[in-house]
Amino acid sequence: MKTKRNLSEICKKINGELSGLPAGISDMEISGITGLEQSGAEELTFIDEAGKIEAANNSKAAAVITPLDVDKLDKPIIRVKHPRLAFAQVLEMFAPEAELSPGVHRTAVIGEKVKLGQDVAIGAYCVIGDGVEIADKAIIYPQVYIGRDASIGANSTIHPQAVIGRETQIGADCIIHSGVVIGADGFGYIWDGKQHYKIPQIGKVVIEDNVEIGANTTIDRATTDTTRIGAGTKIDDQVHIAHNVQTGKNCILAGKVGVSGSVVLGDGVILAGQVGVGDHVKIGEGSTVLARSAVLKDLPAGSVASGIPAYPHKEYLRVEAATRKLPELLKEIRQLRKRIEELEKE
Amino acid sequence: MKTKRNLSEICKKINGELSGLPAGISDMEISGITGLEQSGAEELTFIDEAGKIEAANNSKAAAVITPLDVDKLDKPIIRVKHPRLAFAQVLEMFAPEAELSPGVHRTAVIGEKVKLGQDVAIGAYCVIGDGVEIADKAIIYPQVYIGRDASIGANSTIHPQAVIGRETQIGADCIIHSGVVIGADGFGYIWDGKQHYKIPQIGKVVIEDNVEIGANTTIDRATTDTTRIGAGTKIDDQVHIAHNVQTGKNCILAGKVGVSGSVVLGDGVILAGQVGVGDHVKIGEGSTVLARSAVLKDLPAGSVASGIPAYPHKEYLRVEAATRKLPELLKEIRQLRKRIEELEKE
Amino acid sequence: MKTKRNLSEICKKINGELSGLPAGISDMEISGITGLEQSGAEELTFIDEAGKIEAANNSKAAAVITPLDVDKLDKPIIRVKHPRLAFAQVLEMFAPEAELSPGVHRTAVIGEKVKLGQDVAIGAYCVIGDGVEIADKAIIYPQVYIGRDASIGANSTIHPQAVIGRETQIGADCIIHSGVVIGADGFGYIWDGKQHYKIPQIGKVVIEDNVEIGANTTIDRATTDTTRIGAGTKIDDQVHIAHNVQTGKNCILAGKVGVSGSVVLGDGVILAGQVGVGDHVKIGEGSTVLARSAVLKDLPAGSVASGIPAYPHKEYLRVEAATRKLPELLKEIRQLRKRIEELEKE
Repeated sequence: MKTKRNLSEICKKINGELSGLPAGISDMEISGITGLEQSGAEELTFIDEAGKIEAANNSKAAAVITPLDVDKLDKPIIRVKHPRLAFAQVLEMFAPEAELSPGVHRTAVIGEKVKLGQDVAIGAYCVIGDGVEIADKAIIYPQVYIGRDASIGANSTIHPQAVIGRETQIGADCIIHSGVVIGADGFGYIWDGKQHYKIPQIGKVVIEDNVEIGANTTIDRATTDTTRIGAGTKIDDQVHIAHNVQTGKNCILAGKVGVSGSVVLGDGVILAGQVGVGDHVKIGEGSTVLARSAVLKDLPAGSVASGIPAYPHKEYLRVEAATRKLPELLKEIRQLRKRIEELEKE
Repeated sequence: MKTKRNLSEICKKINGELSGLPAGISDMEISGITGLEQSGAEELTFIDEAGKIEAANNSKAAAVITPLDVDKLDKPIIRVKHPRLAFAQVLEMFAPEAELSPGVHRTAVIGEKVKLGQDVAIGAYCVIGDGVEIADKAIIYPQVYIGRDASIGANSTIHPQAVIGRETQIGADCIIHSGVVIGADGFGYIWDGKQHYKIPQIGKVVIEDNVEIGANTTIDRATTDTTRIGAGTKIDDQVHIAHNVQTGKNCILAGKVGVSGSVVLGDGVILAGQVGVGDHVKIGEGSTVLARSAVLKDLPAGSVASGIPAYPHKEYLRVEAATRKLPELLKEIRQLRKRIEELEKE
Repeated sequence: MKTKRNLSEICKKINGELSGLPAGISDMEISGITGLEQSGAEELTFIDEAGKIEAANNSKAAAVITPLDVDKLDKPIIRVKHPRLAFAQVLEMFAPEAELSPGVHRTAVIGEKVKLGQDVAIGAYCVIGDGVEIADKAIIYPQVYIGRDASIGANSTIHPQAVIGRETQIGADCIIHSGVVIGADGFGYIWDGKQHYKIPQIGKVVIEDNVEIGANTTIDRATTDTTRIGAGTKIDDQVHIAHNVQTGKNCILAGKVGVSGSVVLGDGVILAGQVGVGDHVKIGEGSTVLARSAVLKDLPAGSVASGIPAYPHKEYLRVEAATRKLPELLKEIRQLRKRIEELEKE
């Protein structure tokens, strides 16, 4: 059985104004929250603009979270400043508990001089290297590997089968998903005349606070020095971040992005799906790079870029539109040439 | 020693007609089946059209599977309706047995209220959460993680080190390769003015029957509701499927494809290597998207599309060909301008 | 405490000429080596051309490795033929020791007829299949899976949570990073009229000597026969190599490259980040394919190619530059048409 919550309790959590309950009814049981179309009869939903009032009335939802400028609907509403944020906050009330309780599973292999904070959970078949520090309330799911002298901050969660390489520092409130590999060697070689001679990668990786890293993402250790992910940055699945990269705070890296060695991303940079960034490139703060683009030169702060190589998106759209007209253009030029030939004959 | 099989036994399995055995010989031992060029003296090979008769005669193969319209070769033949399908069926006869026999390895950590069907195999160091159900003859290779309340259908195989997140439903006859992560959180945040506020991902993933999922592929759980992979769909390595995606039946997703949130693929959609699909896009049934394309708008059923963003492939080919002529075109236009100037002077 | 090394000891290792030590000082303690900008007061750095003398003097480094044509700096120097190679060699002196000592961890599950060489290390929770051979001084980190009849060459290192499938052969001096999956099934099906019928993948993978494979890379087993990675080839993170691919010796495959089935790469081929190669394509030795390109046709030896599909890079640059001028071009053609109309009226 899934948990249920009272509408009044939800209203309190999201700091909203509840109205429209049928006469004589003081509260309602809610079984969950979903988008408008999927909502069931006991569920809450939300709209983020008054224009969706009709759709909300037509939905099966029991009640609706609305923006402040909505007066009433045919069903109970909770008015809030930011309905989508409220949606996230209500979801928290229905989220399942962690699958792991505090305590160290009897099968975990714990190295020497390991420091565990209060209420740390370590799952079955984890391997924790010498000198590792794990802070209060961190949850380490089963089958995780944490290398020598690494550290995990308070309240962070490491999902099953992540690999945290030696000396990696992970901050507080981080979420590391399954299959993530942090701290594998950066990709560096020198051709010595006979072979690609390996440049040892002896730097480390620092993940600051409140970072989330999606499944099967890889973040390589620096050659020397540090690969750094700034606080509040969110990274999707299957992203690759090469050695010595520095990301700013609150960046967004969507699925399958590839960031080459020594790239610097300013605060709040957004890289959409499958974007690539060439080595040593700097992208200024607040820039957005659109899906599938490849950034090969520095971009100033506030850029909106696309293309391969990436350039201003507005220009890209004009070039793209013009490109589609090329076959017609070729025909037209052939005609113009004929007309010129005619004129020349005269 | 590898197994050998008799030609007659093979003929029976593929429902073919055997002919051309040398006089006085009633059968032959066959050690394997390969393509024409690699075939060894004790091996079988196949051709899928009569035009390859000479190549088949010149190959080292002991015998050849041919289409029905081939009468004879210089060596024994088995005639069948669909030679390439027969190739697959013969390969099954030479495929090695599973590396794991039924039974639960003594080191597997099994949660409470777990239900195991008949002849289930669970390998070393697996961690199986509370309430998991594993149906008859399923094979769970070593070091797999299966989260709380997940289910695995009959005859399905989970390869080493896959992660099956809580509440995931996997159908019958599925193959999940190593490093696959099913059920990591979808990538969703709301900017609350200070930070990217996480939208809890509390939906699930359903994998229908007869699906194969390649190594290191990731399939994220829905925000609410379900991410669904339709029956018979085949997914290659390192594909990423975001939250709330719905694929139809019998789709093909080749290596490194990325499918964004809430995308809907119709039945039989083929996405070639490294294709990307933007969020909320719908691709109609039977459509094919060619390698490296990015689909950013809906495609009707039966589309053949390519480009970034993707549009009809025929048009793409014309635009692509025209683009290559652009440098010449620039020269030509310069010349036309001069000729016009000349005419204007007159 | 990190190790320190004497400058004289370093000089000997890199076969250099030490000069410029202050009068009365016969040696110096060095705590590490980094790039010019990051270097600290006890660290060594390097320059690879005389033009960087001033920057070297201005750096905080205690001493500098220089090319042979540098006479002196304001600080001690070690002159060598190839400074960048020397940088790699010095890094080796500061690289940490392996986290694992020879010996088999008590929790490792070792199959029957396994052969272990001298000084092999096998970590916690490894699962080693029947008939596996592991040669001298190989290091198998925790939680690795090695399937039946696979072999690992001398001095090779397998990092935590790699999966080495049955019958895979890995040569000597290889490094396999975490999350790598070698030997998953190639992606092959036949449409039988009702479903995608699986073609069993019963070939194997051979990794020759001195190969490095980055985190979460996947290399699929051949349908029949062998997928082969040539000696000295270096592969970055999240690369996908499909069934029956053959790479030459000393190739470089950068991050997120995707190589389709049966591709043949000559010796020394370089594929830059996110490059894709279509199936059955042959790329001649010494060719370079630039970032984000897709190779769909064979390339001759020594090619430098880019684009989707890839063609000679010089031509690509001309086409790319012309493309950017397209919006202007459209305007110009409109003007030319008007001028022709004017002329025609006359």
